[in-house]
Amino acid sequence: FFRLVGVVGAVTPKPIIINGTYINPELGKYHARLRTLARSCLDIKEKHGASQDGMYILTTESGTYYQAFCDMTTAGGGWTLVASVHENNIKGKCSLGDRWSSQQGNDQNLPEGDGTWANTVTFGSAEASTSDDYKNPGYYDISAQDVSVWHVPNNEQLKSWTSSAILRYHTDSQFLTEHGGNLYHLFKKYPVKFGAGQCKSDMGPSSPVVYDTGDKDSTANLYGPSEFESGFITFRVFNADQAAVAMCSGVKPIECNPQHYCIGGGGFFSDRQQCGDFTALEQASKHLTQSAVLLFYR
Amino acid sequence: FFRLVGVVGAVTPKPIIINGTYINPELGKYHARLRTLARSCLDIKEKHGASQDGMYILTTESGTYYQAFCDMTTAGGGWTLVASVHENNIKGKCSLGDRWSSQQGNDQNLPEGDGTWANTVTFGSAEASTSDDYKNPGYYDISAQDVSVWHVPNNEQLKSWTSSAILRYHTDSQFLTEHGGNLYHLFKKYPVKFGAGQCKSDMGPSSPVVYDTGDKDSTANLYGPSEFESGFITFRVFNADQAAVAMCSGVKPIECNPQHYCIGGGGFFSDRQQCGDFTALEQASKHLTQSAVLLFYR
Amino acid sequence: FFRLVGVVGAVTPKPIIINGTYINPELGKYHARLRTLARSCLDIKEKHGASQDGMYILTTESGTYYQAFCDMTTAGGGWTLVASVHENNIKGKCSLGDRWSSQQGNDQNLPEGDGTWANTVTFGSAEASTSDDYKNPGYYDISAQDVSVWHVPNNEQLKSWTSSAILRYHTDSQFLTEHGGNLYHLFKKYPVKFGAGQCKSDMGPSSPVVYDTGDKDSTANLYGPSEFESGFITFRVFNADQAAVAMCSGVKPIECNPQHYCIGGGGFFSDRQQCGDFTALEQASKHLTQSAVLLFYR
Repeated sequence: FFRLVGVVGAVTPKPIIINGTYINPELGKYHARLRTLARSCLDIKEKHGASQDGMYILTTESGTYYQAFCDMTTAGGGWTLVASVHENNIKGKCSLGDRWSSQQGNDQNLPEGDGTWANTVTFGSAEASTSDDYKNPGYYDISAQDVSVWHVPNNEQLKSWTSSAILRYHTDSQFLTEHGGNLYHLFKKYPVKFGAGQCKSDMGPSSPVVYDTGDKDSTANLYGPSEFESGFITFRVFNADQAAVAMCSGVKPIECNPQHYCIGGGGFFSDRQQCGDFTALEQASKHLTQSAVLLFYR
Repeated sequence: FFRLVGVVGAVTPKPIIINGTYINPELGKYHARLRTLARSCLDIKEKHGASQDGMYILTTESGTYYQAFCDMTTAGGGWTLVASVHENNIKGKCSLGDRWSSQQGNDQNLPEGDGTWANTVTFGSAEASTSDDYKNPGYYDISAQDVSVWHVPNNEQLKSWTSSAILRYHTDSQFLTEHGGNLYHLFKKYPVKFGAGQCKSDMGPSSPVVYDTGDKDSTANLYGPSEFESGFITFRVFNADQAAVAMCSGVKPIECNPQHYCIGGGGFFSDRQQCGDFTALEQASKHLTQSAVLLFYR
Repeated sequence: FFRLVGVVGAVTPKPIIINGTYINPELGKYHARLRTLARSCLDIKEKHGASQDGMYILTTESGTYYQAFCDMTTAGGGWTLVASVHENNIKGKCSLGDRWSSQQGNDQNLPEGDGTWANTVTFGSAEASTSDDYKNPGYYDISAQDVSVWHVPNNEQLKSWTSSAILRYHTDSQFLTEHGGNLYHLFKKYPVKFGAGQCKSDMGPSSPVVYDTGDKDSTANLYGPSEFESGFITFRVFNADQAAVAMCSGVKPIECNPQHYCIGGGGFFSDRQQCGDFTALEQASKHLTQSAVLLFYR
């Protein structure tokens, strides 16, 4: 039976600093992270001058505290990792693990699937974001202007993400400012919902990207032959059957087959084989389909 | 490759307060929340005098720290949000997302289903409690006397819960004191288990409620025609087939068809159509079935 | 509508200590836990002298903070609870809740199943580790020498784990030092993957154990008749059909039927009935199959 009644030294305070140095260096690191507590990695960089990549502590407007990874290096830094899209089973069709489309099977009664793109549900952890789907409160809470995307091979550990990424790019068009400041609000405006629009006429926002790793050609090669223009990131696109996909990462569709190069989606596709986090990307390179898509805001 | 070895300012402490003011206001808010650290929102209100609705930091008896939403307004305040029951797919029958009944299909071998009502498993987050099932350590750790229930439309954000709620009521009978001080202990005593009892003879505790939004008539209208008396909250009820439902929120059953107005349940129903977090509430109003049921303790 | 704009006392600091005593004892306990912040329970014991069993605060190398249970008593203490394997449905075959094998059904296309043994995905909570699968960052972050295993009846609460455990044992061979310092690295070296090896020739590491509760005979009795030697813990074993199981806890296989006394595994078994967290342990005693397997590092 445990002695849980008390904790040693709980009643009276104990010194944590001697001669201007933390007795416990880990506590010192923790307090350093608390001193920069903010709403986003950009605030941490601009208001508190932190410049190292790594884990920091953030808060939502409502006062929910969470830990997030900050990229303080790319294009001036200040990028908050808010989500990752990971395909755990390319043959699974809207099955368990397809949190960015539907985990409930291809179902016409669930046109929006799990609704992850436009709700406040969170899951996963930063350190596991290349091994499982990930979404933190920053996804809906942070007010941002641009996005950054890293395609990192599955199961790579945090410390080697940048070195192992096969593709990295970001927008600098500040396109999010016209759409509520983050993807949560953007997708409220452009629902990822079967039947909510037509292929070309109802395409959502698209922005050109600046490459940090790779280029337009490597992007095209990774996705394989399809009618798209690379060097963009495009949101909420319908295919010829009015099925909705969420994000065409690195490209802008030209024809009506986005399921071959866009990821995420609603809960119903006329062709069941297209339902899932990585839709119908089988023809894309394994380097791409076996990499998680990490999403940052700034 | 990241420079994660150190954190700026980790070795030596840095000032956080200048002229009696926090340099970083977010850190000030965080410290204010820590100062009221307690076992429940009622303790926070009574021992530390906090009176604002919002997120606070709580601890279990064992010393697990977690964040919870406190309603410091209703009927004197001190209410801790400990859980929410959200129906993600009214047509899904004990399928994924039915954490308050069973996610493993209607199965006679699993009479208690997932067992959520009587175990310490936790999931979800306060800020997503209208978009997904939610359960925090307070559900089993807090020692309470009464419950409060809010029916809030799906996907409403925390800041608009009270204004958008279609029904809000609480008990003041202190009925929990006779049943172990919370629903975890109540349901240990009254198992939500197929075949563990008979319809009328084995009904669990019931308490009258005081309305904060809506009334007996609006409750009856939301559930639709059925044999119940509104103005109560009732726990662990069996139907005519000995299937168990967990909570009749707002009503007390009269006849043996609780599956039409009670939610949560065990893992087996003779009629498979009744298996799920919202059992067989199809005939209830969409306002009700498309609202999450938020559970508070005091 | 909530008044969430400010938090009382946020702008200016308030005293937390009067006459050398914490005004709020819960804050005192929290600060005591922060003072011992470390990478493992062993560090907490050795560097900070904490000696009470219970919850503590740990950090990963990257600076992710998490709470963990420390056993500071057994064989000198310093044991960190990093995971638990819980069988939620012995008849479910690689179904929901089988996180330590596969939740995606018995599938030859997923030879490694969910991959949990060798990735950084985390889930569950310490206080629910006897009611659900559990894995915290310590599983992959802590650098350890030995493991300790507790078989605790399902749904037992933290405070009664030691008294209710049916079997407790630990290694003192420091075998982990040869395999990367934890099970995450051990299983990278010895993949839990269908077809990756042969029954006897490719058996992974095995170490003798020292018993803290029970003995070799009670271990043998709990598993029932099978060709194994008790008093060991063995990792990554193949059966006659090249299906992989992860951990033979308390025993070392002699013949090629590990599915009768080893747990966890890959995502495919020639005999579907063997797929699941507790593989094919039906012939084992209910005391064993209805107990969670808690895993500690030191």
